[in-house]
Amino acid sequence: MEFTGGHILSIGQFDRGDISRIFDVADELRPYAQRKRITRVLQGAILANMFFEPSTRTRVSFAAAFNLLGGEVRETSEIRASSLTKGESLYDTARVLSGYSDVIVMRHPEAGSVAEFAQASRVPVLNGGDGPNEHPSQALLDLYTIRSELQAQNKLVNGMKIALVGDLKYGRAVHSLCKLIALYDNIRFNLISPPGLELPDEVHKQLTARGHRVEKYHALGAGINNVDIVYVTRTQEERFPSQEEADRYKGLFRLNQSVYTQNCEPNTVIMHPLPRDSRANAQELDDDLIENPNLAIFRQTDNGLVVRMALFALVLNVVDAVHDHSQPVTWYTAKRTPHR
Amino acid sequence: MEFTGGHILSIGQFDRGDISRIFDVADELRPYAQRKRITRVLQGAILANMFFEPSTRTRVSFAAAFNLLGGEVRETSEIRASSLTKGESLYDTARVLSGYSDVIVMRHPEAGSVAEFAQASRVPVLNGGDGPNEHPSQALLDLYTIRSELQAQNKLVNGMKIALVGDLKYGRAVHSLCKLIALYDNIRFNLISPPGLELPDEVHKQLTARGHRVEKYHALGAGINNVDIVYVTRTQEERFPSQEEADRYKGLFRLNQSVYTQNCEPNTVIMHPLPRDSRANAQELDDDLIENPNLAIFRQTDNGLVVRMALFALVLNVVDAVHDHSQPVTWYTAKRTPHR
Amino acid sequence: MEFTGGHILSIGQFDRGDISRIFDVADELRPYAQRKRITRVLQGAILANMFFEPSTRTRVSFAAAFNLLGGEVRETSEIRASSLTKGESLYDTARVLSGYSDVIVMRHPEAGSVAEFAQASRVPVLNGGDGPNEHPSQALLDLYTIRSELQAQNKLVNGMKIALVGDLKYGRAVHSLCKLIALYDNIRFNLISPPGLELPDEVHKQLTARGHRVEKYHALGAGINNVDIVYVTRTQEERFPSQEEADRYKGLFRLNQSVYTQNCEPNTVIMHPLPRDSRANAQELDDDLIENPNLAIFRQTDNGLVVRMALFALVLNVVDAVHDHSQPVTWYTAKRTPHR
Repeated sequence: MEFTGGHILSIGQFDRGDISRIFDVADELRPYAQRKRITRVLQGAILANMFFEPSTRTRVSFAAAFNLLGGEVRETSEIRASSLTKGESLYDTARVLSGYSDVIVMRHPEAGSVAEFAQASRVPVLNGGDGPNEHPSQALLDLYTIRSELQAQNKLVNGMKIALVGDLKYGRAVHSLCKLIALYDNIRFNLISPPGLELPDEVHKQLTARGHRVEKYHALGAGINNVDIVYVTRTQEERFPSQEEADRYKGLFRLNQSVYTQNCEPNTVIMHPLPRDSRANAQELDDDLIENPNLAIFRQTDNGLVVRMALFALVLNVVDAVHDHSQPVTWYTAKRTPHR
Repeated sequence: MEFTGGHILSIGQFDRGDISRIFDVADELRPYAQRKRITRVLQGAILANMFFEPSTRTRVSFAAAFNLLGGEVRETSEIRASSLTKGESLYDTARVLSGYSDVIVMRHPEAGSVAEFAQASRVPVLNGGDGPNEHPSQALLDLYTIRSELQAQNKLVNGMKIALVGDLKYGRAVHSLCKLIALYDNIRFNLISPPGLELPDEVHKQLTARGHRVEKYHALGAGINNVDIVYVTRTQEERFPSQEEADRYKGLFRLNQSVYTQNCEPNTVIMHPLPRDSRANAQELDDDLIENPNLAIFRQTDNGLVVRMALFALVLNVVDAVHDHSQPVTWYTAKRTPHR
Repeated sequence: MEFTGGHILSIGQFDRGDISRIFDVADELRPYAQRKRITRVLQGAILANMFFEPSTRTRVSFAAAFNLLGGEVRETSEIRASSLTKGESLYDTARVLSGYSDVIVMRHPEAGSVAEFAQASRVPVLNGGDGPNEHPSQALLDLYTIRSELQAQNKLVNGMKIALVGDLKYGRAVHSLCKLIALYDNIRFNLISPPGLELPDEVHKQLTARGHRVEKYHALGAGINNVDIVYVTRTQEERFPSQEEADRYKGLFRLNQSVYTQNCEPNTVIMHPLPRDSRANAQELDDDLIENPNLAIFRQTDNGLVVRMALFALVLNVVDAVHDHSQPVTWYTAKRTPHR
């Protein structure tokens, strides 16, 4: 795709060359995300960060990414506060807001709303999540993390083995990630979900059509043997056909250090789109994994920042100018856990 | 008026010289609003953008205007989040906030609240709308748009013909605009409203006292013949004396392309303060007007940005310094629909 | 304490040398708070201003302080908008947000939450108030104000006499201030509260253990005779054991000009942590004190700005670089009531 001036609406718009380009730019911007230098290349530019649905993490990540390139951020964080509640069309909202800003990030609860909005916008629009539909920057940061983690082990995305765990039916993050990974070659997918929450047929077929090997499981165990990546997502009890059914599968999708040691390789990478539910009754990643060096969940969110910086730099066409507008950092910067 | 250090509370404080001054400055700042250059003249200055009532459009417009001059913005968008709910007086709020900022924009649901607030403030205060009372920047951007649109047709505000359509009784925007236009000479006002929603006598008399011609109508048609501007505002069914009455007038105030072609001049400009209700049962501007080049509603919101930049530049006395602090734009800028 | 890279969680972490250091830096930063010059020393740095509880004043004060040093601010103002409501742990929130920012201010309704959060954060954390527990920047700005006001009268904190008035049992601000003042020498504390709302024994003992003189009162009058400072805080009727009891004490803790003239020295300084309830039934500071030059309540909030600037400058280690990154102010600056 031509990035300059374009919208980022769906992972379907990318080919492998586009993804390489985004990741190369992200690599180049890492020193700025890590506060080794600062850049002012977007000084004077305005991001309209429009969140018509609550999301602290994604909202702050996009906005911080824009600030790190030197730009200013205007923000809305709730639909109640908006003219949309007075019957204003997405068309009008887009025409107006695109007069105030240089680029817009939009999150909205309705599928397709961001694409409709983008059609009327006079500036590039980045999809920050349109309900159950798409959340392209999440899929990109997940794949970027997979690539980085595998690189550190001298492996490639091509040929890797990945286990996807949890609610694979409704999880938007998992669907987008599958479609993105499907672009690569010779992947082994282990799909581990409760019965009834399997990956939709349509996504499954996209994987097999591209020649990837796909295997289904209904419990942790064999499915996480000998894989490079375990990607865990929320398992919600209320989505089981009955409470009886839910009780039958209780604990079968919960990854903790002992399950990991019994089943995984010593360097299997653990990922999760976050937020994870840390309450006792949730069945996701256990707290005892925190010391596990392969737990990559916070490297994922760190990577979200550089991937979003890369998207802004590409659509606003400043990749080559970033370093020219750079300066040394003048303040104390924490020793962060290094990105890999 | 003396702009430097002054408050902008009411359109009643302006004479024609003041308005000319604001519009001249707005003209000068257009290249910055259109991202042809950037300016950092307000670098280090802080706007406190205090919206004690929801409003995405106006809030973002003021804040973006301040960012475009190089300043920073602190914001509040809801009364719930505020000390005002704990019984703090406007006096105290103003004393405190004016210690944190260089200029304050305030929206508040109560008439007169912003003027009361301004009395206690140690920095200039701009009224962003005080309930049913005043919203001076809206009236200014409306008149600035009228002036620009007429200029493009080699016409002047003096001597123009304008039709005002909709709820003229309660519409704050219409009242302020009437008072502002009344300062000019020899205007023809066609007032088109449902019975019971006519312009208040007090405003009507201000128009005739200044020698303008005023005619009343209860339907579109003759009233929009041969006018330079049609300014449409919301017609709310619930404001009719009875549903029966509302039904009798159904559709009589709805402007669409066919009504326009039948009644208007080929260059009659269509305006609306926005947001417009785009739901099917609303009786405002139809979607089929979108291709009409005389539909000026998004040029209005674009103009809102430059008019607000002009107000900030005037009260903070940086008009002459803007260009000295300017720089070239380093990023991709969308080809916006040109301002006229 | 070592400020660089450290957290500011509790006033218990400071000794008198630390306090002197903070106040010296605050003194140095006053010209920037008063817009005599601007500084860009934190250009490129990001503050995550996380308010998981509403607070306009404190939130805007921290954020404006950061802007005045040249940094950018990302913000959250409500718990509803946050992943915390989806069961995310403070640990996870801290790991993630500290990847997006260079320093974090956090307010949260639960005691101890900010310290727990800080343990997981990769960047310095400043406590913006953790429920009933601590609000260290408030205590610091109060003491800084006391010091400044006494300096203007050629007096010292050592040896001063202070009356504390109102709900001394539950008032977080009063407890923290007591602990901070206790570090100085030879203070006279007059504790004036309704019966049942006395200072907790634990705090009282800290004062006497350090050799300060402490006297209790149940009404204004003798307790505010011959003191340097009267520090008034909210008296809440609902905290009395019964309405009958509340009625018995009605008006006994209300400071107005006539009570002041009868009982105080002509230069006794009046303070309040704000917001004060200005509704008629509240028993705090009367409006007729507004002309009293010893009413220091807005000097307190102004001082809050410089004290918070000092905390940021210290933990990010830019104190010595502030002036090197300074520039003249280019815009109109209001003649503020001078700080003392």
